Parts: sequence; C-alpha cells; structure tokens
Amino acid sequence: MNGPNLNLLGEREQAIYGKQSFEDYLDILSELFRDYEIDYFQSNWEGGIVDRLHEAADNYDGILINPAGYTHTSVAIADAIRAIKIPVVEVHISHILDRETFRHKSVTAAQCRGVIMGFGLDSYRLGIESLRVLLKNKSK
Amino acid sequence: MNGPNLNLLGEREQAIYGKQSFEDYLDILSELFRDYEIDYFQSNWEGGIVDRLHEAADNYDGILINPAGYTHTSVAIADAIRAIKIPVVEVHISHILDRETFRHKSVTAAQCRGVIMGFGLDSYRLGIESLRVLLKNKSK
Amino acid sequence: MNGPNLNLLGEREQAIYGKQSFEDYLDILSELFRDYEIDYFQSNWEGGIVDRLHEAADNYDGILINPAGYTHTSVAIADAIRAIKIPVVEVHISHILDRETFRHKSVTAAQCRGVIMGFGLDSYRLGIESLRVLLKNKSK
Amino acid sequence: MNGPNLNLLGEREQAIYGKQSFEDYLDILSELFRDYEIDYFQSNWEGGIVDRLHEAADNYDGILINPAGYTHTSVAIADAIRAIKIPVVEVHISHILDRETFRHKSVTAAQCRGVIMGFGLDSYRLGIESLRVLLKNKSK
Amino acid sequence: MNGPNLNLLGEREQAIYGKQSFEDYLDILSELFRDYEIDYFQSNWEGGIVDRLHEAADNYDGILINPAGYTHTSVAIADAIRAIKIPVVEVHISHILDRETFRHKSVTAAQCRGVIMGFGLDSYRLGIESLRVLLKNKSK
Amino acid sequence: MNGPNLNLLGEREQAIYGKQSFEDYLDILSELFRDYEIDYFQSNWEGGIVDRLHEAADNYDGILINPAGYTHTSVAIADAIRAIKIPVVEVHISHILDRETFRHKSVTAAQCRGVIMGFGLDSYRLGIESLRVLLKNKSK
Amino acid sequence: MNGPNLNLLGEREQAIYGKQSFEDYLDILSELFRDYEIDYFQSNWEGGIVDRLHEAADNYDGILINPAGYTHTSVAIADAIRAIKIPVVEVHISHILDRETFRHKSVTAAQCRGVIMGFGLDSYRLGIESLRVLLKNKSK
Amino acid sequence: MNGPNLNLLGEREQAIYGKQSFEDYLDILSELFRDYEIDYFQSNWEGGIVDRLHEAADNYDGILINPAGYTHTSVAIADAIRAIKIPVVEVHISHILDRETFRHKSVTAAQCRGVIMGFGLDSYRLGIESLRVLLKNKSK
Amino acid sequence: MNGPNLNLLGEREQAIYGKQSFEDYLDILSELFRDYEIDYFQSNWEGGIVDRLHEAADNYDGILINPAGYTHTSVAIADAIRAIKIPVVEVHISHILDRETFRHKSVTAAQCRGVIMGFGLDSYRLGIESLRVLLKNKSK
Amino acid sequence: MNGPNLNLLGEREQAIYGKQSFEDYLDILSELFRDYEIDYFQSNWEGGIVDRLHEAADNYDGILINPAGYTHTSVAIADAIRAIKIPVVEVHISHILDRETFRHKSVTAAQCRGVIMGFGLDSYRLGIESLRVLLKNKSK
Amino acid sequence: MNGPNLNLLGEREQAIYGKQSFEDYLDILSELFRDYEIDYFQSNWEGGIVDRLHEAADNYDGILINPAGYTHTSVAIADAIRAIKIPVVEVHISHILDRETFRHKSVTAAQCRGVIMGFGLDSYRLGIESLRVLLKNKSK
Amino acid sequence: MNGPNLNLLGEREQAIYGKQSFEDYLDILSELFRDYEIDYFQSNWEGGIVDRLHEAADNYDGILINPAGYTHTSVAIADAIRAIKIPVVEVHISHILDRETFRHKSVTAAQCRGVIMGFGLDSYRLGIESLRVLLKNKSK
Repeated sequence: MNGPNLNLLGEREQAIYGKQSFEDYLDILSELFRDYEIDYFQSNWEGGIVDRLHEAADNYDGILINPAGYTHTSVAIADAIRAIKIPVVEVHISHILDRETFRHKSVTAAQCRGVIMGFGLDSYRLGIESLRVLLKNKSK
Repeated sequence: MNGPNLNLLGEREQAIYGKQSFEDYLDILSELFRDYEIDYFQSNWEGGIVDRLHEAADNYDGILINPAGYTHTSVAIADAIRAIKIPVVEVHISHILDRETFRHKSVTAAQCRGVIMGFGLDSYRLGIESLRVLLKNKSK
Repeated sequence: MNGPNLNLLGEREQAIYGKQSFEDYLDILSELFRDYEIDYFQSNWEGGIVDRLHEAADNYDGILINPAGYTHTSVAIADAIRAIKIPVVEVHISHILDRETFRHKSVTAAQCRGVIMGFGLDSYRLGIESLRVLLKNKSK
Repeated sequence: MNGPNLNLLGEREQAIYGKQSFEDYLDILSELFRDYEIDYFQSNWEGGIVDRLHEAADNYDGILINPAGYTHTSVAIADAIRAIKIPVVEVHISHILDRETFRHKSVTAAQCRGVIMGFGLDSYRLGIESLRVLLKNKSK
Repeated sequence: MNGPNLNLLGEREQAIYGKQSFEDYLDILSELFRDYEIDYFQSNWEGGIVDRLHEAADNYDGILINPAGYTHTSVAIADAIRAIKIPVVEVHISHILDRETFRHKSVTAAQCRGVIMGFGLDSYRLGIESLRVLLKNKSK
Repeated sequence: MNGPNLNLLGEREQAIYGKQSFEDYLDILSELFRDYEIDYFQSNWEGGIVDRLHEAADNYDGILINPAGYTHTSVAIADAIRAIKIPVVEVHISHILDRETFRHKSVTAAQCRGVIMGFGLDSYRLGIESLRVLLKNKSK
Repeated sequence: MNGPNLNLLGEREQAIYGKQSFEDYLDILSELFRDYEIDYFQSNWEGGIVDRLHEAADNYDGILINPAGYTHTSVAIADAIRAIKIPVVEVHISHILDRETFRHKSVTAAQCRGVIMGFGLDSYRLGIESLRVLLKNKSK
Repeated sequence: MNGPNLNLLGEREQAIYGKQSFEDYLDILSELFRDYEIDYFQSNWEGGIVDRLHEAADNYDGILINPAGYTHTSVAIADAIRAIKIPVVEVHISHILDRETFRHKSVTAAQCRGVIMGFGLDSYRLGIESLRVLLKNKSK
Repeated sequence: MNGPNLNLLGEREQAIYGKQSFEDYLDILSELFRDYEIDYFQSNWEGGIVDRLHEAADNYDGILINPAGYTHTSVAIADAIRAIKIPVVEVHISHILDRETFRHKSVTAAQCRGVIMGFGLDSYRLGIESLRVLLKNKSK
Repeated sequence: MNGPNLNLLGEREQAIYGKQSFEDYLDILSELFRDYEIDYFQSNWEGGIVDRLHEAADNYDGILINPAGYTHTSVAIADAIRAIKIPVVEVHISHILDRETFRHKSVTAAQCRGVIMGFGLDSYRLGIESLRVLLKNKSK
Repeated sequence: MNGPNLNLLGEREQAIYGKQSFEDYLDILSELFRDYEIDYFQSNWEGGIVDRLHEAADNYDGILINPAGYTHTSVAIADAIRAIKIPVVEVHISHILDRETFRHKSVTAAQCRGVIMGFGLDSYRLGIESLRVLLKNKSK
Repeated sequence: MNGPNLNLLGEREQAIYGKQSFEDYLDILSELFRDYEIDYFQSNWEGGIVDRLHEAADNYDGILINPAGYTHTSVAIADAIRAIKIPVVEVHISHILDRETFRHKSVTAAQCRGVIMGFGLDSYRLGIESLRVLLKNKSK
C-alpha cells in the first residue's frame, strides 16, 4: 500500500528514489514470492488509505505500507493500523532518518509491527520477508 | 458527524471504545430525543468532512462532531467549523486528556462552541443536550 | 465544588462569565434536578478544596468540580481527585481551550472522569446530566 | 489552485477575506491577463490537490496555489510540488505571518518558487505577474 | 499585601532582603505618606491572599502586592487581581529578573497595572508613589 | 511533615503507597528511634506547611518533609525551607523519578539538604537516619 | 530601502543573489514604472534605517523594504514600520523560507502590509506592483 | 535616555503611548525635580546609545533608560550598562509584560538596578524617584 | 556486532527480548546463510565497538550492528560507522519507536545504510538479507 | 560501585566532595556494618561498569552505585541495572539537584530501586541501610 | 576589529577582562609580529562594523574580529563576514562557553574560518598566528 | 590527547580532515617546538581518556585534547578535566560550529581553559602556542 506521490516513482527526484517505476518492480516481487498473492494499492488520499486498511483487514494476511508524506502527519492512518488485527510493516525506499528533520518523526511507525528503511525498492522485498517471518511465528 | 475509524466502533479496541456499534447507539439517541431529527455522517476523509460541514451549515440547526484522528491535526476542518454559523460542539468517547500526549492537543476544539469528553457513547447524548441548551439560549 | 474567584460570579468580567450569580443559578439547578440533593461549596483555598474532596468522598455519590485558577497548577487537587472513589467531572463556564495559552493545560482534567466546557453556567447542568449517566452505568 | 474552505470566499469571515467571491475575481483576472489561459481548481480534499498537481504538471506552464488550511500541515502536497517540474508560486489572501501562531509555519512554502501574501485577492494578480517573470527568465 | 515568607523579613537571607523587618519599614512609610491610610496584610496562604483581594476591592483605593513565591505560580491570585477594579501594583524587593531563572516568569504581573522591582524596601515607597499617580490620573 | 493527601495513606492507591496508615508507622518509628522525640504534622494546605516550617525552625533540630503534590509546584514551600536554618531532608514513599514525567521535577528538593526516595514508608526511617548523620556532623 | 550588505549585490555570493548590481537594476525599474518616482536608500546601519523610515513617512506614498540581516533580529525596525502610516511591503531576493532555519523567522514581516520573496531582483518589481495595488485600493 | 522610535511619541499609536510628546513631559519633570539637572538623549541607533552610556558614566549621577525595541535584543547595550558604575534604572511607558510575547523578555533589565513599567509617562517620574532613593542609600 | 547487555539475551526481560540466547540463534543464522561466513562480536564497551568497527572495515564485506544502549547516545560509534567504507545496517530486536521516548532517537542510524527493527531475533535474519541486497547492487 | 573520577576523591574539588579518600571511608563502613561483606569497585570505564553489574548480579545481594558522570548520559548502565535482579540503589555524595542543570537529569535513577543524595560520604552509609531494608522486606 | 564596549578594556569588569587597555596590548602585538602591518578598529556600532568589513576586504590580507555583544545577535555582521573573501578569525578574551548561557551561541562564528577563545588578550596573539597559518596554506 | 576515530586521520573523510596522518604531523610539531617534550595518546575509549587524564595530571605541564565524538556527550571526561590542575586546551581540526547542529554543543569545552577550532591540523600548533602562553602567564 503506497502513499501520496509514489505513483510518480521512476519520474520524480531520481537521485533519491531511483529510475524504476513501481509497477515494474511489482513484477519482480511477484516473481520472487510465487507462494504469495501480492496486491498493490496506491493513493494520494489520506481517507482512501484509511478506507483500504479497513477493507484489507478482512481479505489479506498482512500489509506492507509506505505512507510517504502521511508518515509524518497522519494520526488517522496510525489509528487505522492500530484498529486492524493483521500485521502491518512500514517500509521506506529512502533512509528517512538521514534526510530533512521533519521526516525523522513517524506518527505511523509506532503502530506498525516493524520498520524497514533505506534499501531502495528492495525495502519492499525485505518487507515481504519480514511479513513471512511474522506470519510463521504466529502460526507456530 | 464522525471522523476516521469510528465506523469500526464496536469492533476495534473495545477496552477503550466499548462494544456497541454507533448505528445501534444512534437508535437509542433518536428514541431519547424525539423532538429532534438526527442525521448521521461518518467519513475517513478529511476533505469529506469539510465538504459536509459546508453543506450542513444550511440544512441543520447544530452539529455534533467527533473528529477522531483529525482532532489533533486538521487546520482545514477547524477552518470549516469557524466558517459556518450554526453551533458546533466537539465530543469524544474517551477522555483524550488522559491518553497519549499527542492526543492532548486539539486543533479543532478552539473553533467549537464547547467540548464534552470522557463519557463513552453518552458523550453524544450530553452533546445533544448541550446543543439544545445553546439553541434555546440563542432563541431567547 | 467551585475554585477561586468564582464567588465573584455575576460581578467580575461579565463579558466572559455572564451576569448571573452562582447562587441564583443553583436554585434553577435544584429545580431541574429534584431527584438529586445538590450541595454547593466554594473556596479560594487550594488546601480547602483538597480537604473537602476527602470529606465528600464518603458523603456524596458524585462531584462536579470547576477548579478555576487551580485547574492549571494544582497537583495536590489532582492527587485528591485520583485518591477518592466517587466519580468527579470537571466543568468550565468558558471555553478554556479558546482563551489564553496558559489556560489550555489542565492538570486536574486527566484525573476526572470527563470534562465539559464552554456552555456558560449550563456547563453545570450538563455536568449533572453526565454524573447521572455515570452513576446509572455503574449501577447496571 | 485553491485549498479547503476557499469555496466559501465572499461568505465567511468577511473582515479577513473580503466580500468578493473567487469566481467573480477570476473574471477580472482573465480580463487582465488576456495572453494567458487561466484555469481554476478548488478542493477541500488534500488527496484531490495532490492528484491535480500531478496532472497539471503536464498541461500547464505554471501553477498558483493557495493551500489554505493545508499550508500548515500537508507534507503530501509539499512533496507533490517538489515532484513536478513547472514553477509553483504560493499565494495567501491574508497576511499569514500576522495572524495566529500556528499559521506562521508553512510546510508547503519551502517547495514553491516564491511566496506572495497579504494583498487580499490581489495576491493572485501579483502571483500571475510573478509566474510571468519566472517563465520569461526561464525562456531566456 | 505581602506573600509567603515575607513575615521573616529581617531574619532570612539578609544578603538579598536586608536587615530591616517589614513592620519597622511600615512606620517609615506611614510617616512619609501622611495623607494616606496604609494597611498591611501578610499571609503564607494563597487562598488567604485571594480572599483578601476580594475584600480589599471594596474598602481601599489601591493595592500594593508582593506575591513572593506565588508570583511565579498562582493563576488564582492573578485571576483575583483581574477580577477587582481598583488599581494593583506589583512590587519586589529584589531584582527578580537578575536571580534564578524560575523567578523571571511572573504569572501575576500581567494582571497588575505596573511593576516595580529591585529597589530593596524602597520598592514599596515607589509603589505608593505609583498608586498616587494612577489615582490622580483617574480622577482627572 | 507530610503534604496533601498523605492523610489518606493506607486507603488510596495501595499498589503505589502500601496498606499501612502513617499513624501506625509512626509508632514503629518512635520505637526505633527512642533517643529522639518525633512529632508529626500533616496538612493539605500549602500555606499551612509554610507556617509550620517557620514555627518548627525554633522548636526542632531537624525536619523530614514529604511535600507530596506540592513537591512539583510550590515555590512558597521551597522559599520557606531556604529561609530556616535547621536541616530539612526531603523524602518520598514512591520512586518519583520512575513515575509520570510531571513528578520528575522537584521545586523543593534543591532547598533541602538531601533527598531519599523509593523505599516505601522506610524512606522515613532512612530520613531520620540521615538527620542523625547531619546533626552529628554539625556538632563535630 | 535596502538593509545591510545589499550594497555588495552583484559581487558577493552570486549563486544566491545573481550578478547584477542593484544600481543597474534600479534603472530598469525606473524605466518600467515611469509613472512613479522611485528613490533608493541603502544602509548597513539599523538606526539609519529607522531614521529613514520616520522621514519617509512624510515624503513618500509607499515603501519597499528588504531588511536583509535585520529581517530576523530588529524589533526597532519593526516598531518603526508599525509607527508610520504609509504602506510598507517586505521583499526578499532569495526564498528565505528555503534557506537556513534562522532566516525563516521574520521579525519585521508581521508589521508590513505584505511579503514577496523568491523571485530574484524581480521581487522588487512585483513589490512595486503590489504597492500600486495597495494605493489604488486605498484611493477607492 | 530613550531608544528607537520614541522620538515619535505623541504621534504614533496613541492608544498605547498617549498623546503627549516627550519634550513637553520633560518640562514637567524638570519642574517637579528642581534639585536635579536632567538631560535628555534619544537615538534610534544601538551604537549611539552604547557610546552615550560610556560618556554618561563620567558626567552623571544616574541614568534612566527606556531602550524600547532594543530592550529585547541588545546584548551590546546590556554589556554597556554593566560596564559603567553609576546606577541605571530601566523604565517602560507601557506594561511590556502585558503585550506581545516577544516583548516579555528583557535582555537589558538584568543589568539595571531596577525596573519600573506600566505607568505611562509617569514611569519616568517614578524612575527619577527611584534614582533619588538609590543615590541616597549609597551616600549613607 | 552487538552492543551492551545483549550478552544477557534470553535471560533479561523475556517479555521484550524473548527466551532464546543469541548464541543459539547464531547457529540458526549460519545454517540459513551457508554461503556467508558470519562472525559475532559483543561488547559492553563503547570504545571496544569503535575499535572493532575499524578492524572490521578491512576484513568483512558488511556489518550488522545492534548498538543497544549506545544507539541513543554514541557520537563516537556513529563517527566510526561513517568513517568506514563497507555497508553497515542497524538492527533492533524490539520496536524502539514503540517504547520509551528516549529510545526514539537514534544517533547511529543516520550513519548506517538502512534500519530494520521490530521483528525479534528475526531482525538479524532480515538484516543479513539486506546486506546481501546491498552487496549485490554494488557489484552490478 | 563507583563511576568515573571518584578514584580522585579526597583530592579533587574538596569544597564539593570533602577531603576523605573513599578507601578510608570504606574501612569505616565495614566497621559499621560487620554483618555484611562489602566489596568495592571503581571504574572510569562505562563498559567496565556494565560488565561488573552483570557479574555482580550472581554474587551479591545488593548493589550501591554512584555512577558519577555516567548518571546523566549512560543508557547502557541503566539497561544493565534493569536487566539484573538484585536491588540496586543509587547514591550521590553531593546534592545533584542543587548543582548545574545538566546534573539534574538522571538516566540511571529510574532503573534503581531508590535514590539517596546530598549527605556527603554518609550517603553510602544510608545506602547500605536502605539495602538492608529492601532485603529484609523481600525476605518477609 | 573590536565590537561594542571593548573600548572600555582595562576599566570595566577587571576580574573577567584584565587590567590592560587594548591600546597598550596593541604595541606588544606590533612588536611581536614585525613582519605584519597591524591596524586597529573599534566600534560600538553594528553598522559601523559592517561598513568596515566591506572596506577591509580590499585592503587587508586577513581580519581578526572580536564582535563582543554582537557575537550573539548580529546576522548583519555574520552576512558581511560571509560576503568578503579574505580570511576572518573570531577571537574572544574570555571563555564564552563558560559564562552565561546566552553567550554560548555565536551567530558570527559559523561564518569565520576559525575560533579562538579563553586566553585573555593572548587570544589576539594566537589569532594572528592563526591568520599566518591560513595565509601560508593558501599561498602554497 | 586524541579521542575516537582520530586514529583514522588521513584515511577517513579527507574532504573534512585532510590527507595527512596524525603521526606525520606529530613529527612536524616536535620539530617546531624543540623546547617542549610532546607525548601523544589516542584512544577510542571514553574510560581510557579519563584514566589518562588522571595520570597526565602528575607528569605533564599541560594537555591538548581533541575529544572528537566525546566532545558532545562525555560528562565523565569533562569532570576529569575539571578535577586535574594543569591547564587543558580543547582543539578541533574542523570548524565544529559550522557543521551539523549536534556538533555545536561541547560538554567538555566549558571545563577547558580555552578552545581553538577550524584551522585543520594547525589547530594543534596553535594549541601548543596557547599552552606556552598559559604556562608563561602562570609562571609570572
């Protein structure tokens, strides 16, 4: 689940975010994790993400979320993550603790099960690995 | 008018919010205040709440709002409340001053006519009482 | 239970607090809630309020408190409220979140069961309603 | 591009924002700048503004934005402005540095090319002048 | 009107407060201002000072107050000063802006008509002069 | 000398303060320190504590004070402690540095000769030991 | 009216301020606004700017000021702007909200009628436009 | 010794500063204190005030200073006051603790012997009284 | 590379850190990543960790570090990470952004290539995955 | 267990720490508490103290620690104290709440069972008393 | 180049600044560095220092500046230092990091090439040594 | 005496620290100051530096210290510097006031006799000059 402006991936600020579009990367991910069914949702709308989190809670085993600009401001998304019962892991393409100060604070992170940041698009790959780990531990 | 995640009432975090869904409670409210016509609107979208406040200004005598997660962040909703002329009262199910620190600050409260918090769903009942009081004083 | 300077009600700063004295209003309250026995205590003394809270704990079913100037500074009153077992509700005549910044912080509110503010003297009326609600829920 | 509550212009708080509706003013603007094609978009929705900024990037030479309440909170809009390549200028009808403190901080301003505030609706007129300047300098 | 610990004047911390007791100084004051009737009240009790301010409002033309330790903490006394209509002037024996940081902040000063500090016991003498000035201006 | 609400010891919040009343404990203390004459004073009134500190200065060799809620707010008590010459030691039943943040700050501690906290009622026993030490060192 | 170091324009830090000297630009401005008589004053002295503001109040219709380094520190200049009656508009060559943090705060801006920043030397051109607008509105 | 913008007294912001020019008031002062020779110096220049303080140290018995806008910012003037040996008293026409927050902080006050504020132009009269007191005490 | 107190893993605070000792887990890790040679170093000494980082820079392809208590305070370790050229990834067993506030700030994280937290001991497993990713990207 | 620089006791800053070396005092302590076996450990090394705390946990009944300079900075020592199960009491020779501000904050204190400060070397004596109390209560 | 009040050197506050006048020390400096031509400029005027820095840039190889009271407040001087190309070194007679807190912050230091403080007048001697070093490195 | 990571000098971050190793530079220093015997000590260990400072106090005339990363955090080293009697001067290769904010604060500087920063390795040379000055003044 991707937050605002991530639809521009591969176009905007390539020095920070790389040249690959997210759709292309998604194919690689699906290839890598054939035993999982991976869905993708992107929205620039805070309310849209909240809505989707509610729905997802009943239809998925886990959620990978990159709230982008809403990471630092949205209590509504943080509350939604807390309200649902499946594990949610927060990922960031860039290393947000090494960028501008206002990006150091994450409102949503405290409600997630874990955080992975700084590995470019591979943060998502590690994120799916982490969900696999969380689900396996739970099923024990 | 209810803010984000309140559609999950009765499901999420029952220790804090109780087991009753808002729809059930609404029936009780309508029963209690038969002389009023009570409408209900819930949205996880900040912009949706602003839109609705504008519309409501022409069609209602007063508004009870629980902005939930937007209480602490939304200047847009606060501006909308200030812009309309009918009385708006802010209610909270839980006692937000007794929870996490970031919930102590209310951006929207200063624009409302009054605030009621901490009485569970009965905060809404007291809220309608308070609107009755405000409207009666005005009509004097 | 009223805090410091509220004995001047009806005299000082009428633009904020109105022209009615508290004693007059008390008669109206008693009229409205005939099924309750309502006692009134006012003190400009922090220690006096603490003493009274201790005594009240054994003789009343609930307390409505407007700590006025002590709202923002008194850890002693807050501790007293926490120490007693009957429900305490904090009320304010004015909308303290819409006045000077130093009035935004309430030391005592977190120890009360709920807070009602901004409805003029009618805050007390709503306060008694709220106590009725709290007592009824408890007796269930 | 106008942010939340600006659709109420001419109705709400006339002491601060004046009596003219934005639509009326738009006619005057179009008259003044006949060599430009001016489009207008208003939304109370943060996500809607982000979406529109993305689209606008391909269809316009420059953007004038008044993010209103989102000025002070929206990292998502600020990121969108940074992500697109055409010049964006921030305008404010009122003098936001001379109003409430929480309006002094602009999250979006740092991502814009320039800021103009305090001239009433004429801030938009100066804003278009400034875009003309930025575009002319660029074409040199 | 003197706040807590000022009854010890002439005994405690003579380096800061001097060796003279307040009673002795009072005689000098009465001698200097024969055209005034000067009363003296000292209390270590915050509530006592609030009570006295209320009473004094009806019986005196002006009040000189040195709230001592309550200067920095008492919203209740500040509210009392604001509530009464005769002029109140705040005086301090020592130069509180040149002592510990927590003494730099005065909660009560903003509600007084003026402040005089740093002249030892003569701050009271200048204080009475200042009341004379305020009363004369008023009677014009 | 005990501050506000400590008269409720043994009744309120037994998880933090234990089940023993202070009077019972006092007997144990007197038994343990037969060579000392131990007096006890409790007040919920800030001014009462200041008054008592002044009187005690002439009649006792040392003071053990637990200012409870006034620990964090009372400049008046802190000034009184500084003004008197016999040694004053501050004690706390609970470990105030391990509770809510607002309890971490002690206004009065800096004026005492030493501080002992966290040993339950035995903090008083260690407090008397500490006074014994201070008095012995002084008499050397 | 230009503040300190702006006499070096065209020499210092050309990456930020450009290569043109202010005198050259002034000729262009005079050419553009032939219906106005434009005077120029530059000083590295805070007091000199205050003096000049006083004088200018009687001899000009409006003032364009770039207080440069004094923008962030001078209460004296801010007071002078407030004291005079003709409109004053603050301009900045660079986008000060996008530079070092200490440049984000403007002491003088709140006293001006409007602010324009970030358009290079063209900020002055837009500034004169804005004065034209302010004067026209006034003469209506 | 008067700081910046006080030359405009009687002209600017009459609601705060009154209608009388300082020169007129000076005549009244000289009349009142015939036993003193009173000189007057006003400057909008920080350096000018520092220079004058150095010179005054050798030619006067005491200084009354109203640093106006420099009150809140000038370490240089504060250092100058500290460096000279004759008593300096700070006066303010308005009650600076009751105006905007940035006027609450005085850099210079801590270096003065005392502070008097809030009595209109009569603050100067009380200031000369206070110098008389300081000089008499010294000559004892 | 593990920081202070991690040698106690499996013993201390099992609710937060689990029951497994790190040595046991290391065997599992080595099993999982047979194509890597994994070394382990633990120290309670800040200087020891700095020394080891210097040495490791020449002998390893990448480092996984859990600085534990030094995460929040050690500029020295942060500088060492910055000084060496092989990739360093920071891992945490617990979700440090969801614990005490003083654990929210990471001095060392900004110098690492990425951060992984909250997955129990599996954070290390994901950490090695992340190093694999970083090394593969580099060798491209 | 003593922290950095305490090996210099009796040499450095005698005004604050006294003239006695710790070794001499240790003999007195052993004499006073013959029923206890008292060991002494001093280190200037943060890691050394952590190591020793781990070892001590298995070999002693209780620990008295004066972390000196590490009191204010060491999360590692605080974590070590929390990790071990025997009671740890923090002692300070001087009254750290009455010295420089940066000494007011104790990172380690919250993890200890109690704190004793301000009684010179006798703080250790009271500390052993307090351990005796804690152990006796536990064995009950 | 010396800032405000340094003309009083040898007169004011001898405990901090010593008894020697700067003129006398200048002779010693000239004697020590015969291969340099040393000029001296002192001003109590912020604008005067800015003017002089501009002029000096063309006529000297390096500048030694002690901005005194302007160190902590003058953005204008800091900008002037940044604008000129010859090396500027900041010196302080006293150890400003060991004095009052408001002296800890240097606005100008970040724009200088280096800082030397705490060696009395010999700070200037070390300053000239440092300029010699900077010029020699540059000419290499 | 050099702090952590300075053993990497000439290797790490050459843009900031230069290419020369400290050992090479030491030879130059010894050559320059033949009348002094110069010893060199480097450690990445906080405790090691404290130990060495204690020893050095008896065997040297003065100490030059660059605490590197410990500059900003180590109360233990600051206490050690204060505890010893020979002069200690703090030096920095880079201009720490012109780097990241967290490097602006020096815990150790206030305990040193003086500070020299920003001259590359020549800061050490100026440091020895400064010790020469301090020792000569002392021997007078």
